[in-house]
Amino acid sequence: MSGENIKHHCGIFGIFNCPEAARITYLGLFSLQHRGEEAAGICTSTGDKLFLHKDKGLVGEVFKENDMSQLPGDRAIGHVRYSTTGSSTVMNAQPYKVSYSHGEVAVAHNGNLVNTQLLRRELESEGSVFSTTMDSEIFVHLIAKSQYSKLEEAVFHSIKRVVGAFSVVLMNPKQIIALRDPHGFRPLCFAKLGKGYVIASETCAFDLIEADFIRELQPGEMLVIDDDGPRSYFPFEKETHQVSQCIFEHVYFARPDSTIFKDNVATVRERMGRNLAKEHPVKADIVIPVPDSGNFAAMGYAKESGIALAHGFTRNHYIGRTFINPTESARSLKVKIKLNPIREIIEGKRVIVVDDSIVRGNTAKSRIKLLRKAGAKEVHMRISCPPHVSPCFYGIDFPSKGELIAFNKTIEEIKGFLDVDSVGYLSLEGMFAATSQGAGKFCAACFTGKYPTLIFDAVDKFKLEKC
Amino acid sequence: MSGENIKHHCGIFGIFNCPEAARITYLGLFSLQHRGEEAAGICTSTGDKLFLHKDKGLVGEVFKENDMSQLPGDRAIGHVRYSTTGSSTVMNAQPYKVSYSHGEVAVAHNGNLVNTQLLRRELESEGSVFSTTMDSEIFVHLIAKSQYSKLEEAVFHSIKRVVGAFSVVLMNPKQIIALRDPHGFRPLCFAKLGKGYVIASETCAFDLIEADFIRELQPGEMLVIDDDGPRSYFPFEKETHQVSQCIFEHVYFARPDSTIFKDNVATVRERMGRNLAKEHPVKADIVIPVPDSGNFAAMGYAKESGIALAHGFTRNHYIGRTFINPTESARSLKVKIKLNPIREIIEGKRVIVVDDSIVRGNTAKSRIKLLRKAGAKEVHMRISCPPHVSPCFYGIDFPSKGELIAFNKTIEEIKGFLDVDSVGYLSLEGMFAATSQGAGKFCAACFTGKYPTLIFDAVDKFKLEKC
Amino acid sequence: MSGENIKHHCGIFGIFNCPEAARITYLGLFSLQHRGEEAAGICTSTGDKLFLHKDKGLVGEVFKENDMSQLPGDRAIGHVRYSTTGSSTVMNAQPYKVSYSHGEVAVAHNGNLVNTQLLRRELESEGSVFSTTMDSEIFVHLIAKSQYSKLEEAVFHSIKRVVGAFSVVLMNPKQIIALRDPHGFRPLCFAKLGKGYVIASETCAFDLIEADFIRELQPGEMLVIDDDGPRSYFPFEKETHQVSQCIFEHVYFARPDSTIFKDNVATVRERMGRNLAKEHPVKADIVIPVPDSGNFAAMGYAKESGIALAHGFTRNHYIGRTFINPTESARSLKVKIKLNPIREIIEGKRVIVVDDSIVRGNTAKSRIKLLRKAGAKEVHMRISCPPHVSPCFYGIDFPSKGELIAFNKTIEEIKGFLDVDSVGYLSLEGMFAATSQGAGKFCAACFTGKYPTLIFDAVDKFKLEKC
Amino acid sequence: MSGENIKHHCGIFGIFNCPEAARITYLGLFSLQHRGEEAAGICTSTGDKLFLHKDKGLVGEVFKENDMSQLPGDRAIGHVRYSTTGSSTVMNAQPYKVSYSHGEVAVAHNGNLVNTQLLRRELESEGSVFSTTMDSEIFVHLIAKSQYSKLEEAVFHSIKRVVGAFSVVLMNPKQIIALRDPHGFRPLCFAKLGKGYVIASETCAFDLIEADFIRELQPGEMLVIDDDGPRSYFPFEKETHQVSQCIFEHVYFARPDSTIFKDNVATVRERMGRNLAKEHPVKADIVIPVPDSGNFAAMGYAKESGIALAHGFTRNHYIGRTFINPTESARSLKVKIKLNPIREIIEGKRVIVVDDSIVRGNTAKSRIKLLRKAGAKEVHMRISCPPHVSPCFYGIDFPSKGELIAFNKTIEEIKGFLDVDSVGYLSLEGMFAATSQGAGKFCAACFTGKYPTLIFDAVDKFKLEKC
Repeated sequence: MSGENIKHHCGIFGIFNCPEAARITYLGLFSLQHRGEEAAGICTSTGDKLFLHKDKGLVGEVFKENDMSQLPGDRAIGHVRYSTTGSSTVMNAQPYKVSYSHGEVAVAHNGNLVNTQLLRRELESEGSVFSTTMDSEIFVHLIAKSQYSKLEEAVFHSIKRVVGAFSVVLMNPKQIIALRDPHGFRPLCFAKLGKGYVIASETCAFDLIEADFIRELQPGEMLVIDDDGPRSYFPFEKETHQVSQCIFEHVYFARPDSTIFKDNVATVRERMGRNLAKEHPVKADIVIPVPDSGNFAAMGYAKESGIALAHGFTRNHYIGRTFINPTESARSLKVKIKLNPIREIIEGKRVIVVDDSIVRGNTAKSRIKLLRKAGAKEVHMRISCPPHVSPCFYGIDFPSKGELIAFNKTIEEIKGFLDVDSVGYLSLEGMFAATSQGAGKFCAACFTGKYPTLIFDAVDKFKLEKC
Repeated sequence: MSGENIKHHCGIFGIFNCPEAARITYLGLFSLQHRGEEAAGICTSTGDKLFLHKDKGLVGEVFKENDMSQLPGDRAIGHVRYSTTGSSTVMNAQPYKVSYSHGEVAVAHNGNLVNTQLLRRELESEGSVFSTTMDSEIFVHLIAKSQYSKLEEAVFHSIKRVVGAFSVVLMNPKQIIALRDPHGFRPLCFAKLGKGYVIASETCAFDLIEADFIRELQPGEMLVIDDDGPRSYFPFEKETHQVSQCIFEHVYFARPDSTIFKDNVATVRERMGRNLAKEHPVKADIVIPVPDSGNFAAMGYAKESGIALAHGFTRNHYIGRTFINPTESARSLKVKIKLNPIREIIEGKRVIVVDDSIVRGNTAKSRIKLLRKAGAKEVHMRISCPPHVSPCFYGIDFPSKGELIAFNKTIEEIKGFLDVDSVGYLSLEGMFAATSQGAGKFCAACFTGKYPTLIFDAVDKFKLEKC
Repeated sequence: MSGENIKHHCGIFGIFNCPEAARITYLGLFSLQHRGEEAAGICTSTGDKLFLHKDKGLVGEVFKENDMSQLPGDRAIGHVRYSTTGSSTVMNAQPYKVSYSHGEVAVAHNGNLVNTQLLRRELESEGSVFSTTMDSEIFVHLIAKSQYSKLEEAVFHSIKRVVGAFSVVLMNPKQIIALRDPHGFRPLCFAKLGKGYVIASETCAFDLIEADFIRELQPGEMLVIDDDGPRSYFPFEKETHQVSQCIFEHVYFARPDSTIFKDNVATVRERMGRNLAKEHPVKADIVIPVPDSGNFAAMGYAKESGIALAHGFTRNHYIGRTFINPTESARSLKVKIKLNPIREIIEGKRVIVVDDSIVRGNTAKSRIKLLRKAGAKEVHMRISCPPHVSPCFYGIDFPSKGELIAFNKTIEEIKGFLDVDSVGYLSLEGMFAATSQGAGKFCAACFTGKYPTLIFDAVDKFKLEKC
Repeated sequence: MSGENIKHHCGIFGIFNCPEAARITYLGLFSLQHRGEEAAGICTSTGDKLFLHKDKGLVGEVFKENDMSQLPGDRAIGHVRYSTTGSSTVMNAQPYKVSYSHGEVAVAHNGNLVNTQLLRRELESEGSVFSTTMDSEIFVHLIAKSQYSKLEEAVFHSIKRVVGAFSVVLMNPKQIIALRDPHGFRPLCFAKLGKGYVIASETCAFDLIEADFIRELQPGEMLVIDDDGPRSYFPFEKETHQVSQCIFEHVYFARPDSTIFKDNVATVRERMGRNLAKEHPVKADIVIPVPDSGNFAAMGYAKESGIALAHGFTRNHYIGRTFINPTESARSLKVKIKLNPIREIIEGKRVIVVDDSIVRGNTAKSRIKLLRKAGAKEVHMRISCPPHVSPCFYGIDFPSKGELIAFNKTIEEIKGFLDVDSVGYLSLEGMFAATSQGAGKFCAACFTGKYPTLIFDAVDKFKLEKC
């Protein structure tokens, strides 16, 4: 899947009461870079005023040393983002900062709402004006429309109207508010740093800045941090919201060194690989991961099966955003330039290739062709999650149904298309069993088509940008 | 004055029913570049959707060939802008495009409103959210808040609430609306191009694209252009609004080849120079303009007085935005690097120096010192407008009163400060007499302190960005 | 001519025994920017080692504040250059620094040699390797091949072999050597700054840094500056070299505030305009310069003829290096965007247009068309030098003979081509008479085809880059 | 070691008789990017003329689509390079192209010469001028000084004078010449592509472009490729040159999917890990590689020892060239941001960490600290080569002796410094045994201090840049 460029969907960060808040946020965003490579932003506060810098590009490109002096203060929120290409998209970078009747407020959002259109039409009918195409803009309009002068009250009362996936950090000059939707689709974690507090999408951001992980925010939790210390509110009715954490965060998105949804990601992936080996055993000589996304699952498969692990692909780390193609055969070059098989490891072997997922199938097909050319005697494809058959409305940019190979083809047809000797997907049960919480706590709609919320918006008709 | 970097305040452009609207707008903005050097933007329409590209920088930097393909359509509006420096100011570039209950609308504005704070507080109290610090954002909020589904009706009814200087072009996918405030502070001109129509701050933009100048918009005129052709409305009550065109556009801002406020700018400036010679004659050998802002007034002075014109200063055209200073004496270098006196022309001469204005006085003082060093026997300063004593609330970025030399010093003191043998300012009467309309049609508040509107906003307290 | 983009050909600068030599050189190059806009470089010395920074671009682009710290020392040479476009041309920027048997040496050169090929083939036959395509590289090879360990001896003895135009500054860690070819084609000036000395192509560089102009180097003079103070040598036999200073420096290249070849440039240009009026009088209403190149000649013409000067063209100063063209009619746009005629000044008038030269004629033709469209009743073209009929081998990048309008057409035909009512060129005699030295001291080969040196190189066959 | 930023030293590429030679060279350099990240260049030929583009930066930054059209022809050489930082270093990028008595020649070089100073002084004494600080410039001077008009004869006769490490590709408009020094220090490989031929530092470049690997060049081989096909010469006397291939290419430099010195690199590394396990067994729970440099050795160690492999470090791939540091504790951040340990994998475990080498020791020390903080019960360091005690004169940028931890400390002291429970280095015998050629064919001077050549240059005194 690493080759198919599934876009990650945003990482968020917040910090309160720490000197050099902008620099620490910068580091935090660096650790969350895998969640969004296309824009980055930091908004800081000195207690009475917000300061914002954001632009297109990687964290290391957006922020230069002299930007830091423009971001004073001991509190901040930050964001890394995937956004559609186009020259004006800096307008859609986050945090999104506005002023309203009670001052300044900024928001950074990870996830995708499913009633944006409804809310937007309602707000517009009351005279609201939307200056971006991000559904994240909804939050500030709801706050502004509420009658409450205190930010926490405004959030508490207005947030109930929002449906969908949202892990959010908000700030005004005095407060940071972190918020996780009642389904808990996206992760959101809480830590202590010196006398202050930190919020991040994943715990890997805490390790770098040496913050002490306290706990994840609960689904539906609203955590307010200000000079009175942190305190939690629960704006949503619990009984009506099924916890539905995105299992694909464990399969692919999150960094392996993070702990989210109560489990370490690397450990879950290795267990998925073990379960995959139990479900789809095959006689073979070596187990090869598609690096780096398949590394842990392959390790698990190898351990469980007793078949030797081998690093059969070399990864070229220099792949950047631009690339000059020869006029012919450009297509397969992109696959080859990223991963090159090592003939000495593969030749004459029966090979099990382990990857985290197959989306369209073209990249996988090209890779298998490379393995065959490198002399693989047999190629067995193993995937550490079930077949993808449905789109995600909660923030993951899968292609449309029609492009999903597993929506269009049976397992047997996929085997033929990929030209492999066998193909095996991990079952839903095997996938959930790799976590400590089990099936009931996860959203697996992309595998099952069963969505934990109503999808209010006619998604094809009104296309907004997700985050 | 050219050396004092008075910031010009925005130029606007609109075009309807012309192929390659973006390219023509690009050219138009190129001609209006002197009105705003710090950001530029173009919004186009294909009839059903708006497309926007804007960024910090000069027109030639903001738009590259491949941006043109992202700006399809046969109608467009454009903007060049002065804005405060800072890394995030791209957010404040124009056109400002939003969506509201009746679709998309974009606005480009030249001028400065004087009741922004009042309106903003009112709008915010009803739940509006402001995403920029430009007072231009007011327009779209008023449109959105009005009950009217047709853009022209919404503009017609809501625009009456706005007080101040505004020459504006608005567009939705179907229509272009041009609007000039009832005082007519800023210029706005109308032309025909092929089967289509063009709007521009100054007529110099028409020359380049070979459009045929029709007329200026009247103060208070709202000109709607769509498939039904152009038609005019007058939303404001005429009797309550004194026409108050900015005389400083003639003195300094506008390009000499433009015709605005019914007169060619170069011609008005030359007449100002003639009147200046009549009011402040002096025996001298040569008349030297401060290039380029003093060129036409110096020509007029020379002709009227019969004293020979001489190009005594050489202008260095390579002055860019960055400049490395030697550690010592950096101050006067900036003046010297821009204009260098020619000793052979000046030495032993009694010199009359003609400039358009003196603001703080430091630049003028440095230049006169250069003339003395180059051997001038006498130096007589002549200014083609009256002394500046009051700030402008309508869009010109003069410094605060306290920094204005003429607010702080008598003419005699100015003479001493500048170290000149005499100094002469054009009188109000002489200035107005240089135009064909006369005193009654102009705002001269920066010279008189008499403002043609109430200044609602406590300007020092609520500082928004003008345009 | 300003519109025809005749490329200037390099400016040079040197400084010895001044603190912050790099910063002062930066300022000097800023003043010489008009002599070369495409690359810039500075080489400094701390007395034992050379430091170099050079790149493509304007002076203000090539040097940033942090480059200054990489250029320590109290002595330096600098260069601005015209070079052919192309991504690798940074290799051809100057100063050109090398090491040879007696240490490091750097060179900056203005002019064009005419026996480069002969020397190069000779040097190559002895094993020399040329790493650039600049004929300036010849100097260091000759120095290296000479047997002399002292740089001044090496230069003294080897320089005699070089034929052509060369104003040069050379440096090793201890010395600066300035050198002007025995014909004196290009200017080279000498000044005092504090306890140190400065060399520059034109005196305008001295004004900015407040150096005191001492004198021009004599043709054939070699000026050595080191801790023993400045001293002059004359390596060339005087009798065999006719002084042949480039008259076109006065006509067009040099800055008007400079003094070169014993005359102030502005003054010479004004006299050329006066002589032009005497030679080619015509009844007319106004005299219009093509700004800025025709400004002084037009002033002279107006004064001599008694016809009023008028600034009939407005110049757009924002023309940069890139420009997006509409698909149609791009050609004439480039002319129009640069200069726009002012109808109010021109309409109904008999106009004399004064420019410094006509090369191909297309630009002039487009401008005259603009004047006609702006309502000129008659247009009389006046040129402040004779017709160009021959190429320059000494450093000016005129097009080939076949492209020169005056080589191909009679005056009558030029009149027809330009569609003017009359055309008048200044005579050779009138041109020389504008200087204080007279005909005998100047090269006018581009007007006469009479070259003051043999042209050894088959120029069309071996194309090197000039400077 | 990956964290210690040992700079790789250049990769070279050549191609003859292939359409779109520049594009294929671009791809080849992409595959060789790990050998030099700081500059890149391509020189092509159309058969009669050379075309060059080179600049600072990664391959993907230096070359853009429109550069390709400036690089026509069906033959080319290319280079990626490590160079010292500094703004002028583009001058030192390669290929280095010059003209000499017999036309144009360009060179790209990997390796470091050891008699550069001697040769340079000799050449300079004969009048040669050096325009770079690269010792690679020697080649073209020797060619130019030789009497031979044919490039292959000039190379054949002059190359004998060069001592040191050099894998080189040279070209004139007609020929490509590949050359490997008689010791064979650096790899150089030969392949067929369609009707043409390809040369590359490593075979991984062939895989991407689908060229068929023929063989490595022999030490001392000079391979001439032109329209007459490829042919080999052997300019050096075989008996006096001991084959001395750089074993550190296998340990660290080369890409694992390459085959060099007759062995696949990944396979050699895995065998090194196996031998390391035999030599330094220890009871432990997991084997952790330092990614990516320790991956294969760790795999070998795990297999041989039967101890489970675990991916205990997560690597952040976004580390770029700039990085904003917090004011405090910046040092250890650079280590942590690159690799983050996974607590769930490490906690409570006895850990064996496998890396390819330790140079200064600080990075290793920081990493071990991270493992301890992540809960490792024991940490055993295993290194897949012997201790580094001597500098490399053949092109690898080790620090000076005094900075090498193993030069300064005993194994016991290293153990204490790193704070590990045990440390074990692979023996020389164990290292060589991992290759199929054995000890006699390799240079291991950095481990032994025994250099296979005289080191003519006083390296500390005359510091040139290596490649």
